Amino acid sequence: MPQLDTDRLLPLDDRSRGIARDLYTSISNLPIISPHGHTEPAWFANNTPFANAAELFVVPDHYVFRMLVSQGIELDSLGVPRADGTTVEQDPRAIWALFAKNYHLFRGTPSQLWLDHSFEHVFGIREELSAETADDYYTHITNSLATPDFLPRALFDRFNIEALATTESALDELKWHKQLGDSDWQGRIITTYRPDAVVDPEFADFANNVAQLGSLTGCDTQTFSGYLQAHRLRRQFFKTMGATATDHGHASARTEDFPPEQASKLFEKALAGQCSAEEADAFRGHMLTEMARMSLDDGLIMQIHPGSARSHNHGVAATHGRDKGFDIPTRTEYVHALQPLLNAVGMEKSLTIIVFTLDETAFSRELAPLAGVYPALKLGPPWWFFDSYEGMRRFRETTTETCGFYNTAGFNDDTRAFCSIPARHDVARRVDCAYLATLVTTGRLREKDAIELAFELTYGLVKKAYRL
Amino acid sequence: MPQLDTDRLLPLDDRSRGIARDLYTSISNLPIISPHGHTEPAWFANNTPFANAAELFVVPDHYVFRMLVSQGIELDSLGVPRADGTTVEQDPRAIWALFAKNYHLFRGTPSQLWLDHSFEHVFGIREELSAETADDYYTHITNSLATPDFLPRALFDRFNIEALATTESALDELKWHKQLGDSDWQGRIITTYRPDAVVDPEFADFANNVAQLGSLTGCDTQTFSGYLQAHRLRRQFFKTMGATATDHGHASARTEDFPPEQASKLFEKALAGQCSAEEADAFRGHMLTEMARMSLDDGLIMQIHPGSARSHNHGVAATHGRDKGFDIPTRTEYVHALQPLLNAVGMEKSLTIIVFTLDETAFSRELAPLAGVYPALKLGPPWWFFDSYEGMRRFRETTTETCGFYNTAGFNDDTRAFCSIPARHDVARRVDCAYLATLVTTGRLREKDAIELAFELTYGLVKKAYRL
Amino acid sequence: MPQLDTDRLLPLDDRSRGIARDLYTSISNLPIISPHGHTEPAWFANNTPFANAAELFVVPDHYVFRMLVSQGIELDSLGVPRADGTTVEQDPRAIWALFAKNYHLFRGTPSQLWLDHSFEHVFGIREELSAETADDYYTHITNSLATPDFLPRALFDRFNIEALATTESALDELKWHKQLGDSDWQGRIITTYRPDAVVDPEFADFANNVAQLGSLTGCDTQTFSGYLQAHRLRRQFFKTMGATATDHGHASARTEDFPPEQASKLFEKALAGQCSAEEADAFRGHMLTEMARMSLDDGLIMQIHPGSARSHNHGVAATHGRDKGFDIPTRTEYVHALQPLLNAVGMEKSLTIIVFTLDETAFSRELAPLAGVYPALKLGPPWWFFDSYEGMRRFRETTTETCGFYNTAGFNDDTRAFCSIPARHDVARRVDCAYLATLVTTGRLREKDAIELAFELTYGLVKKAYRL
Repeated sequence: MPQLDTDRLLPLDDRSRGIARDLYTSISNLPIISPHGHTEPAWFANNTPFANAAELFVVPDHYVFRMLVSQGIELDSLGVPRADGTTVEQDPRAIWALFAKNYHLFRGTPSQLWLDHSFEHVFGIREELSAETADDYYTHITNSLATPDFLPRALFDRFNIEALATTESALDELKWHKQLGDSDWQGRIITTYRPDAVVDPEFADFANNVAQLGSLTGCDTQTFSGYLQAHRLRRQFFKTMGATATDHGHASARTEDFPPEQASKLFEKALAGQCSAEEADAFRGHMLTEMARMSLDDGLIMQIHPGSARSHNHGVAATHGRDKGFDIPTRTEYVHALQPLLNAVGMEKSLTIIVFTLDETAFSRELAPLAGVYPALKLGPPWWFFDSYEGMRRFRETTTETCGFYNTAGFNDDTRAFCSIPARHDVARRVDCAYLATLVTTGRLREKDAIELAFELTYGLVKKAYRL
Repeated sequence: MPQLDTDRLLPLDDRSRGIARDLYTSISNLPIISPHGHTEPAWFANNTPFANAAELFVVPDHYVFRMLVSQGIELDSLGVPRADGTTVEQDPRAIWALFAKNYHLFRGTPSQLWLDHSFEHVFGIREELSAETADDYYTHITNSLATPDFLPRALFDRFNIEALATTESALDELKWHKQLGDSDWQGRIITTYRPDAVVDPEFADFANNVAQLGSLTGCDTQTFSGYLQAHRLRRQFFKTMGATATDHGHASARTEDFPPEQASKLFEKALAGQCSAEEADAFRGHMLTEMARMSLDDGLIMQIHPGSARSHNHGVAATHGRDKGFDIPTRTEYVHALQPLLNAVGMEKSLTIIVFTLDETAFSRELAPLAGVYPALKLGPPWWFFDSYEGMRRFRETTTETCGFYNTAGFNDDTRAFCSIPARHDVARRVDCAYLATLVTTGRLREKDAIELAFELTYGLVKKAYRL
Repeated sequence: MPQLDTDRLLPLDDRSRGIARDLYTSISNLPIISPHGHTEPAWFANNTPFANAAELFVVPDHYVFRMLVSQGIELDSLGVPRADGTTVEQDPRAIWALFAKNYHLFRGTPSQLWLDHSFEHVFGIREELSAETADDYYTHITNSLATPDFLPRALFDRFNIEALATTESALDELKWHKQLGDSDWQGRIITTYRPDAVVDPEFADFANNVAQLGSLTGCDTQTFSGYLQAHRLRRQFFKTMGATATDHGHASARTEDFPPEQASKLFEKALAGQCSAEEADAFRGHMLTEMARMSLDDGLIMQIHPGSARSHNHGVAATHGRDKGFDIPTRTEYVHALQPLLNAVGMEKSLTIIVFTLDETAFSRELAPLAGVYPALKLGPPWWFFDSYEGMRRFRETTTETCGFYNTAGFNDDTRAFCSIPARHDVARRVDCAYLATLVTTGRLREKDAIELAFELTYGLVKKAYRL
């Protein structure tokens, strides 16, 4: 018996469901464009097999282990490595069994939808995951991974991915991307310029990072102008490895546009480790505007991902480090925060700034009104906790009326869970087709326009926005 | 082929759709009450023809040109006048062609629904607007406008408008309203008292404006008591031109209720141009309470429209001035902000204060709970970006359960786009009937009560709230 | 003719409605667990009849009288007692008539659903309440109340209540609970430890209250350690009267975790009446963490109910006192506010902290992400103004995808309106079944899992969360 309903996520009344099904059929086989994510380029460069079911689905997926932690299961028992490198639980089959026994916790969550989709569509498993089937699951998945059809490049091809962006630090040597470029494999894996380590005065080792940026570029990064020039050169280098975009993940959406001397002084304080929290924040905000100016010159599109309070629990941060499920969204203001940036470059037609949010209330109140008037601004898809049926539905319902569809930028999966990529894009395609169908049946959209839009939301807009 | 689905915006399941259709039929021919808007009284006073399709639908409509701007089209190319009076694009047919070629941008927006409604119901056009049909559209609309049936008064009558309020500055001489009053035309066009220019210390030429208020009323507006008296007289004058309401558009919902001496001192500083930003804000807040006290005396209802950050882009403000689509909603707090006002006069049964918001999150959290207990407070309809299918639906879903229907104030269109008035009221009527029908089919409302409420939401409540 | 649709609140498409009906049938007869509320233990201890229809349904119910007040009806006319003890309207039949005449105000509100449910299911009335039927209603209800079947204990049994928690001040002697414990009646009525009067330095008579806490426990509550010990003893005493939980209703969600000396100094200032507003707030915040530590020791679960601005209108507070419908929700921040508490004890598996909100925007942004990772944190059901069809629907839609079902804590009615208890639980059961059915028909949940979850949401989770 199939695990997934073939009409899943489509509207419930017959007429809308029929239209949605037709729309979905028209776009369901389009290639996947994945312009923002966190898969490892080494997977594709080396093309060595994934280790086992637990390493593939449990250990690296913060959606999965955070839910298990919330019900009292230890990160250690799930094989999540400690910051000092030790792992308590070493047996992947035991990790998998613990996950399977608690799979009921994921009922009603997108994780279950993604996982069931992977189990059925990637591994051909038609039985439900449970304590009873855990062992068979583990054996089947782990054995499959050892076969040629499940090597990273084979899966990439099977997933019909046209382009996949990874994200690397500005200091990364991009050796895997180079190796990929030198190989004869045709898969398009591109990098993304992520400069947090060298624009955030509060980042660990900021001054050393900036010095390293100097070494990598031959610029004198002890002066602000040399530092900016180093960014320019580094962005060029990332472009040679396919990059079409930069990515910026600050705690708030604050931007600034200081006069050069003021920015330069902040930079000197930052290098000296003398910035107050406020000054560090101001410097980060100013650098967003500098990055936007560079984008005007070099054509990289710019992504802003604000609003996450990272490492909320200090104990977990100490034992297990960053990105362990304790990053919590916070209220995020955009109207005043983005004003310096948008006053500087927001009217530029050749610039694209894609903004994301973890605060849904900003969609109808702030982000759709901003994207509905500034040529440079586009809305990114619902992100992180909102990459879900309800999240996507509310995104369309709260933005379309004010900024339309053409100020949005398609879907991106933002994931490190490789096998979830087809599942996530499938959810987005279904929810968008469902929304379009409902617009048709409530007389808000012509059916022929819905067909065009289904293509745009799936494929056209993302290629255009990310220049792919 | 008709452009509009006759069942548009109604619910999707058969039973609810049937009930909604019956409800809609029972109220669809009721006259339009438009108690708040920005049409020009001169149109009706002079009754001269509208110029052409572009001047009617594109140039004055910020919903339309902001969307085009967001996709890189220049305000200049759309004939939107510059602040210095120059217009780059002078050819209305070219403006119309540019608009038509980009009409796909409006898919899924209320603008498309309003425009298609106007095209079909006002101008009888059954073909879709597109690059191909642009020229025929332009000719047909522009030619129609030159005929007697399309003169402003003829349209007013055809639209079945029972009363239409315009909005004028406290300093306006209301000569068009006077001319209308002296004419033999029966159309009811009333004014609204909008005192921003003389209550906001940060308004351009505040001191001169206050002096002019003195000249107009014969009061000594250099003293606070004379200034208040001038307001009283001016409000009386507006009442003779039909006004039943005042309107107040501040950046926040802040109110204050200072002792007279403190208010008087703030006023002196304001006149002297010596208010800090905080003092200016405090003075505006205090004046809302003064205005409410005057309303207690003269019976004018009071409208508060807070929460827009005006002229977000300074460059556009410099070249093209105010109201050019760059007004962006902001987070708006009401509970503490309205407390001084509501403590002063909120329990008064003879007073009506209608509050609007651009921050939807306030509906369920703050505004419905406040309107659900204070006799003086009523909720205005969803406003501006929320004057839409989804905006109206969320308004009902987030307010009804806490403050019911009888603490709301019907619909108003708040528009300067005259031809959109029937379209906008039609959307509101359909969405309300759809909501009522769904309440019936989910067992939350008796069908006979839904019929009564359809009438109240369309006609009864707005007449009562605005004393029309 | 029945007043209530037997399929009320179920989904509208046939397939979902059918599944929802099956789910509802499977759980509709389960006993009621009411782990948080404000009924009077004296009712059950004394088991004397309720006085009349007005005293039962109008006078004590702030949902009811606030709506009537919003339309200009005086609290006095509704028999709501003044703070000085006087009541203007003494005739309960007149109060009832006034309420009945205005019953249309409740159309579309949960109050109407609860009231109609009580009228039909508790009193067997099948005619609608109106001005015409008011008198018959009054007579029928009032006469019924005088019969044995309508005594408090008889209703408790008829309502199929398995456990009912009341809420008492830390200083309460719990004499009614003692009397109930000594009686031979089997109904399970338990208390809840509510220490506001002795943890909030701004509470009336704080120092005296703390002294009284000393007398009651024999501890020296003039020292911080003695004061903490007194809490421990008092909590033990509440446990002997059945308590399984504490309850904390602060204005914000602020928590603190100060070093003992700092906490001790704040306590001394509080006792001396010398705390600034900020210090009082800090002390309250610190005491939440102290209470959580005590919960770790004694196993009482902890409830946090923040975000209400109490007694918004000072005039009504002066004439009629607290809890008169003028408590208004405010924007509430949780991520930073709860961080000290969650860093101190959030990873403890044996601790349960149930958090509520009056700010719905926190569900998807803050509360579901927090509850979806911290073992100690669970989400309380939608509260107060959100104890409604739409409120519950939005709660599930904005939390399930991030924290699943198993990090929620079932339903609680939080009511002082005894007859509304079955109605409120019935609404929750229907809305949950409707939501589960829709998950099934959109392919997001297996039907067999929906059956399990219907039981958990109704009965399993609340018993587990509250240790009942």
